[in-house]
Amino acid sequence: MTQKPLLFTPGPLSTSATVKQAMLEDMGSRDHVFMKAVKDIRDGLLELAHVGKSSGYEAVIMQGSGTFAVESVISSVVGAEDKLLVLANGAYGERIAKMARMHQLHHEVLRFDEDTIVTPGAVEVVLKDDPAFTHVACIHSETTTGLFNPIAEIGAVCRKYGQVFIVDAMSSFGGVEMDMKNLQIDFLVSSSNKCIEGVPGFAFALCKRSELEKAKGQARTLSLDLYDQWAGLEANGQFRFTPPTLSLMAFRQAMRELEEEGGIPAREKRYKENKRLLDEGMAAMGFMQYIPAAIQGHIISSFLYPSDPAFNFGVFYDKLNSRGFVIYPGKLSKADAFRIGNIGQIFPEDIKALLKAIKEVLEEEGVRM
Amino acid sequence: MTQKPLLFTPGPLSTSATVKQAMLEDMGSRDHVFMKAVKDIRDGLLELAHVGKSSGYEAVIMQGSGTFAVESVISSVVGAEDKLLVLANGAYGERIAKMARMHQLHHEVLRFDEDTIVTPGAVEVVLKDDPAFTHVACIHSETTTGLFNPIAEIGAVCRKYGQVFIVDAMSSFGGVEMDMKNLQIDFLVSSSNKCIEGVPGFAFALCKRSELEKAKGQARTLSLDLYDQWAGLEANGQFRFTPPTLSLMAFRQAMRELEEEGGIPAREKRYKENKRLLDEGMAAMGFMQYIPAAIQGHIISSFLYPSDPAFNFGVFYDKLNSRGFVIYPGKLSKADAFRIGNIGQIFPEDIKALLKAIKEVLEEEGVRM
Repeated sequence: MTQKPLLFTPGPLSTSATVKQAMLEDMGSRDHVFMKAVKDIRDGLLELAHVGKSSGYEAVIMQGSGTFAVESVISSVVGAEDKLLVLANGAYGERIAKMARMHQLHHEVLRFDEDTIVTPGAVEVVLKDDPAFTHVACIHSETTTGLFNPIAEIGAVCRKYGQVFIVDAMSSFGGVEMDMKNLQIDFLVSSSNKCIEGVPGFAFALCKRSELEKAKGQARTLSLDLYDQWAGLEANGQFRFTPPTLSLMAFRQAMRELEEEGGIPAREKRYKENKRLLDEGMAAMGFMQYIPAAIQGHIISSFLYPSDPAFNFGVFYDKLNSRGFVIYPGKLSKADAFRIGNIGQIFPEDIKALLKAIKEVLEEEGVRM
Repeated sequence: MTQKPLLFTPGPLSTSATVKQAMLEDMGSRDHVFMKAVKDIRDGLLELAHVGKSSGYEAVIMQGSGTFAVESVISSVVGAEDKLLVLANGAYGERIAKMARMHQLHHEVLRFDEDTIVTPGAVEVVLKDDPAFTHVACIHSETTTGLFNPIAEIGAVCRKYGQVFIVDAMSSFGGVEMDMKNLQIDFLVSSSNKCIEGVPGFAFALCKRSELEKAKGQARTLSLDLYDQWAGLEANGQFRFTPPTLSLMAFRQAMRELEEEGGIPAREKRYKENKRLLDEGMAAMGFMQYIPAAIQGHIISSFLYPSDPAFNFGVFYDKLNSRGFVIYPGKLSKADAFRIGNIGQIFPEDIKALLKAIKEVLEEEGVRM
């Protein structure tokens, strides 16, 4: 069992002791050891996506949270004459729509209910109808609910209509096998504190080089200029602005540990087993999930509040917390729910321990299921 | 002596073992323990600037490097009808000018040579001449050279002409006593990995609340929206987007250690002693500094390359590095120089050890001074 507190969250999540220990040595941001680590990380990320520099792809690391990297892509690659189609069925899709508004991009938002997936057919209807569209942005694992959007099918539609395809795979990359090229993804964004199991501090965009090059001189901000960030890293291996050196050292260690575990396939298997145990255990206690099983991913699950008024989420959260289990509040627009993540250094025995604690707390509080 | 490698850089810099050890426990970004740490940090930062919420000031933490926080301020507080005067005598002033261009702000840049300070008289002439100016931005410690601009005098001019005064005190805050209110500073920006001696991952802006409130709805980006970041932290103590949880835990520890050292006055004294020993030792070896002593700060020093062609900076850097001393390349536009920082967990005995190593390397390389 991993050391407590155990974070059953969508990130920052539980990381290994050795990942955190990689932060115990100070590191100069322009020093050789650090620059080598950055190069290893950039090369390794492309490998995880089954692409590489030789096949025309580039990895760009961006300081800040995942949102910073998403905004870096959106505000750098969609040009003044381009038009972006945002696919939204949760808070993270809406966040991209907000970026498009703030940067005054030509764009439209195609919305779906939070408990349904983005349908490729609906995307095709929109693209067919308006030849002005040049870019499509979609969330893979919508952390709002835990559903997976069908990015392979959406990618195929993008290819058919010549669209640049931007995928926010924040909470899924590293925990789901993805061949970026086969999936027709031009820009894939994720962050340090998700399925690769590093600590927070930065995010990254994996980019098709030919599309990245078009972003030159096009960014709306200095800090989030995706092209310039890439050009800087390529020129001398250094960041334009101070990088989170120690988060990067932790991430390099996390990448090694991912490899030791057996790569993404092995990790995906562990997460799926976590999810299976969690779902079974929660269902046995009488909890209902917000979205149907068919569209659920294995990253995070949304459980509806029990109907018994004796259930108080604040108390439930605090009592689990005091036992060393950190769960996650809900973010749904239409229902009261809480979320439990299956990712990070969480193993089947941790899930069992969590289930036992949930049972105890419900009994203590006299919640009837 | 601090554990090697010793970073004689402007940050990321050498930090204490205990600061780094504060990162060894995973931390949920919405959890009580973490939110309490964030509150302590925000309150503590205002105290260090001799202001507080009760006197009308607010601390906003921004993910990313110091530049992200500077851009957050510049792109959030200068409105569409405002006009910004950028004072530039080095790379960091020019960086603000670039932000102003990218965000298409009404602005002008008043430039000074890199080896001279910004003169308050020249600022006054510009402000007197053009009543359209509303904001003035200035670097305190120009890390390009190590000079200190006279922010007290510039602040007085700003007050006289009703200007909002934005100070980039990135490399000096925490190592120089500053009373934000007395200095007439409305926005003061610094970062986690400078004189407070934390690790990189975030930066912060200390803000006069009445001016911060004017930034509502005015930001040009989602991630760097200063007002929204503040409003989010005030609403529920949480960040809008994933914070670098462990960098923040390290920073809270760093703030405690600053207090234990005797606060900013004691730290300033240590840094000044470092600087005195460094200057004396380097002068004794025959090194010349780029800027006159009268305008030098005590954060970082720029030393000109020796004229002997036997001096090769790459070799010099590597040989010091292999001895555990990390120095910093130059950034001057007109002269070849390298830089040595006096900040971080660097003590007089570390400076002496560095001087000894420099002497050895020069002898090994046969450099005649």
